[in-house]
Amino acid sequence: MNNSESPQDMVPPVEGVAGGGTAYGWGDGSLQVQDQSLLRGTIDPTRVPTSELIHVWSMPNTANVGPQEMPRPLEPVSLLAARNERESIQIAIRPKVSWSGTNIAGVVQIQCTDLCSTSGDRLVIGQSVTLRRVVPILGVPDALVPIEMPISQINLLPGETSAIWISIDVPSTQPPGQYDGEFIVTATKADAEYAAQFLGKSEKHQLYRELKNCLDVIEPIDGKTVEEVVERVKSANTTLRRVLLSPSFSEFFSENGPLDMMDEDANLSIHVKLSLTVWDFVLPETPSLPAVIGISDTVIEDRFGVKHGSAEWYDALEQHFKWLLQYKISPYFCKWGNSMRVLTYTSPWPADHPKSDEFFSDPRLAAYAVPYSPVVPCGDLTKDYLQKEVEILRSKSHWKKAYFYLWDEPLNVQQYDAIRHQASEIHAYAPDARVLTTYYSGPSDAPLAPDNFLKVPGYLRPHTQIYCTSEWVIGNREEMVKDILAEIQPENNEEWWTYVCMGPPDPHPNWHLGMRGTQHRAVMWRVWKEGGTGFLYWGANCYDKATVASAEIKFRRGLPPGDGVLFYPGEVFSSSHEPVASLRLERLLSGLQDIEYLKLYSSRYGREEGVGILEKTGMYLGPERYTLEHTPIDMMRGEIFRTCRS
Amino acid sequence: MNNSESPQDMVPPVEGVAGGGTAYGWGDGSLQVQDQSLLRGTIDPTRVPTSELIHVWSMPNTANVGPQEMPRPLEPVSLLAARNERESIQIAIRPKVSWSGTNIAGVVQIQCTDLCSTSGDRLVIGQSVTLRRVVPILGVPDALVPIEMPISQINLLPGETSAIWISIDVPSTQPPGQYDGEFIVTATKADAEYAAQFLGKSEKHQLYRELKNCLDVIEPIDGKTVEEVVERVKSANTTLRRVLLSPSFSEFFSENGPLDMMDEDANLSIHVKLSLTVWDFVLPETPSLPAVIGISDTVIEDRFGVKHGSAEWYDALEQHFKWLLQYKISPYFCKWGNSMRVLTYTSPWPADHPKSDEFFSDPRLAAYAVPYSPVVPCGDLTKDYLQKEVEILRSKSHWKKAYFYLWDEPLNVQQYDAIRHQASEIHAYAPDARVLTTYYSGPSDAPLAPDNFLKVPGYLRPHTQIYCTSEWVIGNREEMVKDILAEIQPENNEEWWTYVCMGPPDPHPNWHLGMRGTQHRAVMWRVWKEGGTGFLYWGANCYDKATVASAEIKFRRGLPPGDGVLFYPGEVFSSSHEPVASLRLERLLSGLQDIEYLKLYSSRYGREEGVGILEKTGMYLGPERYTLEHTPIDMMRGEIFRTCRS
Repeated sequence: MNNSESPQDMVPPVEGVAGGGTAYGWGDGSLQVQDQSLLRGTIDPTRVPTSELIHVWSMPNTANVGPQEMPRPLEPVSLLAARNERESIQIAIRPKVSWSGTNIAGVVQIQCTDLCSTSGDRLVIGQSVTLRRVVPILGVPDALVPIEMPISQINLLPGETSAIWISIDVPSTQPPGQYDGEFIVTATKADAEYAAQFLGKSEKHQLYRELKNCLDVIEPIDGKTVEEVVERVKSANTTLRRVLLSPSFSEFFSENGPLDMMDEDANLSIHVKLSLTVWDFVLPETPSLPAVIGISDTVIEDRFGVKHGSAEWYDALEQHFKWLLQYKISPYFCKWGNSMRVLTYTSPWPADHPKSDEFFSDPRLAAYAVPYSPVVPCGDLTKDYLQKEVEILRSKSHWKKAYFYLWDEPLNVQQYDAIRHQASEIHAYAPDARVLTTYYSGPSDAPLAPDNFLKVPGYLRPHTQIYCTSEWVIGNREEMVKDILAEIQPENNEEWWTYVCMGPPDPHPNWHLGMRGTQHRAVMWRVWKEGGTGFLYWGANCYDKATVASAEIKFRRGLPPGDGVLFYPGEVFSSSHEPVASLRLERLLSGLQDIEYLKLYSSRYGREEGVGILEKTGMYLGPERYTLEHTPIDMMRGEIFRTCRS
Repeated sequence: MNNSESPQDMVPPVEGVAGGGTAYGWGDGSLQVQDQSLLRGTIDPTRVPTSELIHVWSMPNTANVGPQEMPRPLEPVSLLAARNERESIQIAIRPKVSWSGTNIAGVVQIQCTDLCSTSGDRLVIGQSVTLRRVVPILGVPDALVPIEMPISQINLLPGETSAIWISIDVPSTQPPGQYDGEFIVTATKADAEYAAQFLGKSEKHQLYRELKNCLDVIEPIDGKTVEEVVERVKSANTTLRRVLLSPSFSEFFSENGPLDMMDEDANLSIHVKLSLTVWDFVLPETPSLPAVIGISDTVIEDRFGVKHGSAEWYDALEQHFKWLLQYKISPYFCKWGNSMRVLTYTSPWPADHPKSDEFFSDPRLAAYAVPYSPVVPCGDLTKDYLQKEVEILRSKSHWKKAYFYLWDEPLNVQQYDAIRHQASEIHAYAPDARVLTTYYSGPSDAPLAPDNFLKVPGYLRPHTQIYCTSEWVIGNREEMVKDILAEIQPENNEEWWTYVCMGPPDPHPNWHLGMRGTQHRAVMWRVWKEGGTGFLYWGANCYDKATVASAEIKFRRGLPPGDGVLFYPGEVFSSSHEPVASLRLERLLSGLQDIEYLKLYSSRYGREEGVGILEKTGMYLGPERYTLEHTPIDMMRGEIFRTCRS
């Protein structure tokens, strides 16, 4: 050893403190365990505070919480909702350590209580409060798969964040006030680790044989001598004693019985406080803005193996119709024909069928499609079909919701003429019938003007009442809205609706997978700002063809991912037959609810203020200028709550 | 009904056939089930061919098989390996449908047989053939987590591809020839679905109480009257009969007992044929190219809670050393000090300790680091430490593997002087000692020349023997290699080694997470082409600080993901304490093995041909021109097999 060497060279250097190992220890402090020994060796989650094992934090419903979402501080959840409104929040969970001996980081038990007000009113878990798991589709968080309530278990994977979607549906009659509850997360052992508590199959068979022998010994005692009976009973006693003292039952030897671990967990759990302010505004039972959404009957027929027109087919369509109504949209079933001719119908039954009345009268339905020709062709019925149907429907009070959607995006004179032809027939039977036409262009083979698109109303009038234009055509040219509206004649009951489908693309609002949550929700903000009175979306179940209900979901070739798909077959994710909503469908609903808030505000302060609040809060300024963060949404809702509550 | 309407308008149109619904049915045909009824309703995987339920296909070891990997046709696997070589292949599995009623798509049983030759030689599963699950890190497939062999179960998720990594380690003594085996995948039921076969806890407790009562009734019969005994026995009979006829035991009522589902599965499974040609080349026991890789002892100390110098600490280091040797690398432990001074050592024990001899003599070790100062300071030992150590080591035959690595990337005159100072001392005791210095620049405060970097050897000589330069400096300027080599004096036992760390970045070869598999493997192809005689990597376990073994793995701030991390603590993924290799570590090994093939080829046909074959096969032409696909790798290996086998 050279003596000129300074003594500090002899001390092993410390990584991260003195140079080297870039930023070693920067993330230190995430594990502030009181007793580190509890995390050494095998970790027993029933003896360690859950907060040592996992991160739990809340995220707004516009966040796309994927596996790589990083933890944030846990704060109490505070929400605002009107009556007849659904409000949602996400709880994200990520393991800090692995405590399961298996392929996962660990199992957590999640539990949600009722939300209760001080006056004893409740929002009941499983009814008004529901829990779903956020499942990625093509790697993007999208499917909301129901989980058991009020308690369920989920597996956490190492290095991956999981998210639970909590929705609160406030009934129309719910008393306003503050409702409090808790979401409780408890790290626990995997079922396999509890398996010691169960009797395995071979063990059970052994037990069965022993008891059977025992019975064989003591059952036939009639006519036996006392000695023999005593002998047999003693033999049975021995067998029974051996059985009862076997390891199978060892847990019951103690008088007190085994500890119930579940009870012990309570103090170790993470409690997320949920607080919801319900205010006196009641969202209208019938949505103010009709959002009509297509459901492909072909997809239902193929996927669920139901034959067009069969009893199972009617059942399947009814199930879809009813499930979708909760999203405040107005479903129509559809089939595509030649050159984008479409057959659209909200009820698969004829107009005089009681089910049609039930469907059309549902107050949650804002609009319904009447088929131009029979959905299920049936001999004589076909003749004079349209006239008969229209005559029946015209006599009903729900007739004001009716519309005819005959052709998707006509592109040439022939197609436009087909619409005129069909519409003439309809209007012959019902002059007040509404025909809806979607378009993004006038006829390409006979341009109407340099503004081929803008001049369509003049070209189609009086054969269309609902002029439904593509948002893609408008793009970022918001000033075009004025020109479109100038061509519409509201005084003649004409309306302007819009639609999105493949376009507009990012960064404009649309419902493609991979877009931001606020971008999904902004589809409806855009409608509100532009002033359209209705909205159309071509498909909610337009996955690619499959003939098995639980077949992998594939998007169709040529479409952006998620386009035409707003929910999934439940069979893909579990044994449930209930459809599984996408995050994008929830955001559609949220957007429609935002419109109700904005409409309330406008009813008090005028349309100008109702648009101005979008800008004031920074929520939505235009198709390329809307908030990427959630806060402005809560600001808008909070402001309307403050200014409009009674 | 207007009679001018053509009849075809009355027929509901068919989606996808006639317009509409872009590309509906394009993916049709993936489910060619003979009997569709087997996939309707609840799917019983024990009655349906597994091929109806899942896709199975093979992928080369350079593929990064993530959850979105799309199915390919299943083809038999055909591999080539030398003796003392590891060759790997991946089997990808993706559900076509969901058949589990739970949160997953379904469970598959995977099984691998031994590989056998016609002459009866074997590569035994669990020994020479191993199975690991590919697990994503930060969303990128990287960790290889061991699974049970020969049979294990894995969960498949809807819409996600899983991958199994099969490695075959061919022993040096394995007879050449063709070895055949099978990888078998069988869709099965989840454990939970078998749970009906088990007795739950409360059911078991009930059973216990009934039997206990039964025993209480018939046990004390001594001194009882006959009538009383008969009465008691009858009561016991009733209880026993009730117990035996309870649903708990219903499966045993039939004489034949329940069917054993496992046995039935065989014909329904997917069999992937595995064929391996072992050829007579034996990879050298000691790797031709020393690849020295740093292991942070600080990380081991913090993460596993072992105190520096304690018995547990020596154990932990030894475990790491031995585990890493299988990857044909030469580990050194290290700590960073001030200004990138490093303390590096391959054995934690002093030179005279038998363990040091064991470590250094291991034929798989190509080079070892000798610490300049004591690793575990210990009173008297410190004095004259270096001199004594060197004197001991110089007397050993393994001394030729020794090197001293004193400073990481010196940057100024003071740091370069420190190296000279320490090296002088070392050379005073051992003139033939090798000092290794990593650098990417000459001293910044006294530039050596316009080519500050190139002139370092002249500046450091004779205080460094292994000039280890950053590949990042070379970048795409391959002509610079000539200039570097011109400064090295091999005749004076000087060597040129290289290293990668943070740089070079994509698209150059490196080991960052998210790079292509061939890009990982090309690190060693680059070394071969450039002609360096050794390689250094700064860290294999340099995750961020954690004080719990199973804590989530976090990469250090400021480093590209995966940089400094080539394996993970096993505790994160399971209860195993064995480290978990990354895909990148496997590709490092493959690259080192490729060098042995190329060296063999060069020994026959010369260095020029040995470099030429890289170009001829399209495998590697330069840091920005190497194959992105696997095929050229097999071409290179196949060509060397054909031309060099005896």
